[in-house]
Amino acid sequence: MTERIHNFSAGPAVLPVEVLEEAKENLLSLGNSGIGILEHSHRGSAFLAVYNQTVADCRKLAGIPDNYHVLFLQGGASSQFFMVPMNLLSKGQTADYLVTGSWSKKAVEQAQRFGTTHVAASSKDRNFCYIPKDASYSDAPAYVHFTSNNTIFGTQWAADPQVPSGVPLVCDASSDIFSRPIDVQKYGLIYAGAQKNLGPSGVTLVIIRDDLVKAGPLDIPEMLQYRTHAENESAYNTPPTFGIYLMGLVFKWMLKQGGLAEVQKMNEAKAKPLYDFLKQSSMFRGTADPGSESLMNVTFVTGDETLDKRFIAAAKEAGFDGLKGHRSVGGMRASIYNAFPAAGVQALVDFMRNFEASNG
Amino acid sequence: MTERIHNFSAGPAVLPVEVLEEAKENLLSLGNSGIGILEHSHRGSAFLAVYNQTVADCRKLAGIPDNYHVLFLQGGASSQFFMVPMNLLSKGQTADYLVTGSWSKKAVEQAQRFGTTHVAASSKDRNFCYIPKDASYSDAPAYVHFTSNNTIFGTQWAADPQVPSGVPLVCDASSDIFSRPIDVQKYGLIYAGAQKNLGPSGVTLVIIRDDLVKAGPLDIPEMLQYRTHAENESAYNTPPTFGIYLMGLVFKWMLKQGGLAEVQKMNEAKAKPLYDFLKQSSMFRGTADPGSESLMNVTFVTGDETLDKRFIAAAKEAGFDGLKGHRSVGGMRASIYNAFPAAGVQALVDFMRNFEASNG
Repeated sequence: MTERIHNFSAGPAVLPVEVLEEAKENLLSLGNSGIGILEHSHRGSAFLAVYNQTVADCRKLAGIPDNYHVLFLQGGASSQFFMVPMNLLSKGQTADYLVTGSWSKKAVEQAQRFGTTHVAASSKDRNFCYIPKDASYSDAPAYVHFTSNNTIFGTQWAADPQVPSGVPLVCDASSDIFSRPIDVQKYGLIYAGAQKNLGPSGVTLVIIRDDLVKAGPLDIPEMLQYRTHAENESAYNTPPTFGIYLMGLVFKWMLKQGGLAEVQKMNEAKAKPLYDFLKQSSMFRGTADPGSESLMNVTFVTGDETLDKRFIAAAKEAGFDGLKGHRSVGGMRASIYNAFPAAGVQALVDFMRNFEASNG
Repeated sequence: MTERIHNFSAGPAVLPVEVLEEAKENLLSLGNSGIGILEHSHRGSAFLAVYNQTVADCRKLAGIPDNYHVLFLQGGASSQFFMVPMNLLSKGQTADYLVTGSWSKKAVEQAQRFGTTHVAASSKDRNFCYIPKDASYSDAPAYVHFTSNNTIFGTQWAADPQVPSGVPLVCDASSDIFSRPIDVQKYGLIYAGAQKNLGPSGVTLVIIRDDLVKAGPLDIPEMLQYRTHAENESAYNTPPTFGIYLMGLVFKWMLKQGGLAEVQKMNEAKAKPLYDFLKQSSMFRGTADPGSESLMNVTFVTGDETLDKRFIAAAKEAGFDGLKGHRSVGGMRASIYNAFPAAGVQALVDFMRNFEASNG
């Protein structure tokens, strides 16, 4: 088999080898069923067992209370950008957004056609290189929306934002979900495209409180109501069965690591050598403010675009793939989600140190 | 490896073994890239090569003219039920629907909130066991929508419905797409959930004429505009990369069979022994009218629910899975899409003949 290289892709991203190996074994026959995982009816007992285990493991992993639904939807986080306001915001109401990067900007733009929006905090003044400390909320917002990790700008909320009591907190956690323990009860709704920390692209995990499901409007298409998916356990229509299966394998893998507290320790230990190196390097520097740095996406530059390009090319040549920063910011980005191996980060640091020595 | 059994599931459904084998080989490394197919960035060169080949093969297979877009969306055919009227129907306009089963009923229901709907033909009077011959269209409908194959009732349009000149024909082809040649130019829009004839669940193929894309409204969420996906080659946000990859493998497999004309011959030869048997059996009878029978889903009953149940249980025991009819109609259904092997149909006929002899 071809040797696997260091895959720093921001998503779809690296998956645990044991998850891929297990999926591989079940492609032509799920267990001894004689039917591959891709070919099982979503209403058959074999897939229902997969579904039930996936939901149970998700609940166990994140300590999800019974009054929250676990849904597997389609259309990515981008579809949640409009589904959230379509379901939770009415004309005459205001929704507050904390704008810390490109994705939260897109989210607030999509909400504008459903009601009033208010940007309660923004870090746009310094090109989103930090997480704002303060927010000025509107009176009685319908909800407060934030993006817990900013894939493009390499920043991450160190703690949940403080919101007015009783206001539902809505989180786009696409790029750091289950990278650390999460107190689900603080949230009204959490959503995450799977392709960074949870599985393949094409399935979106939505964790939503029951009262918000029930309060949603009935005059929008059934497929766009959270109610429809909650009442039908994500099988109102054919769900993305393989994505759910793979997410289940990733949940099992995380439980095997010891759960989210252990996963957090792994992620902290994994990112540290890279951030430590950036602090003392005379060639490279991190772009996120101290205290706002992401454990998932480490963004850095040399300060010289030509040198950036040379570095990226040399790294690619040496088997470090996907280090080019997002087209909207340039520079470099190392995406090191849960499944990215610590040895790969260490190898990158060694490579950067050598590159600096040879090109300094 | 576990032996594969006869999988008559209506969807997700059986896939060609060689497609599954190839996917299996590429799970840990796509070719010699060192990164698995699930883990490649949707903007990287390796996945873009997959995407381009998939689109090219789709165009070649179905002879899709240049003024049609090939899109890979999410949310299943159920999401097209509302996206079609949301994009093609305005208040004050009327859309015509040909109602031949549960799915077309659902489609017309979802359209009602966007404009006026008119049922131009229906086979509801005889529980959808036939395809209507005539239709009474409204004056200048925005489009005419039909379902080319009715998975649940085992009926299929033998030829395209005749629609007034200049009116866009919209087709839900989920359960018989690419089972026979298709004259794309007759259509304004064709959509199909992949999980029956094209690949795994979680990706929807949409073939849409450019003028319909351009005429779509701008005041709906970006993700719900065909324009957004057409302008961004299905990568406005992260597409379901694995589903696209797998669909590409299925397209290659169909081209290898000789293209759609050959696929049609295979399907006709494959279904024939079962329909022939049903015509002469004294225990089983097909439920679809002659001339309306589907080559994809063969529905039949004994006329005795207890006997139906005994047959389904005995068949399952003997390795024929998924023969239970849809919960809304009962009886039996053998889904024998493109990838279902002819030998499996013959084995079923032999089993039915023996069952009839032993239980007659």
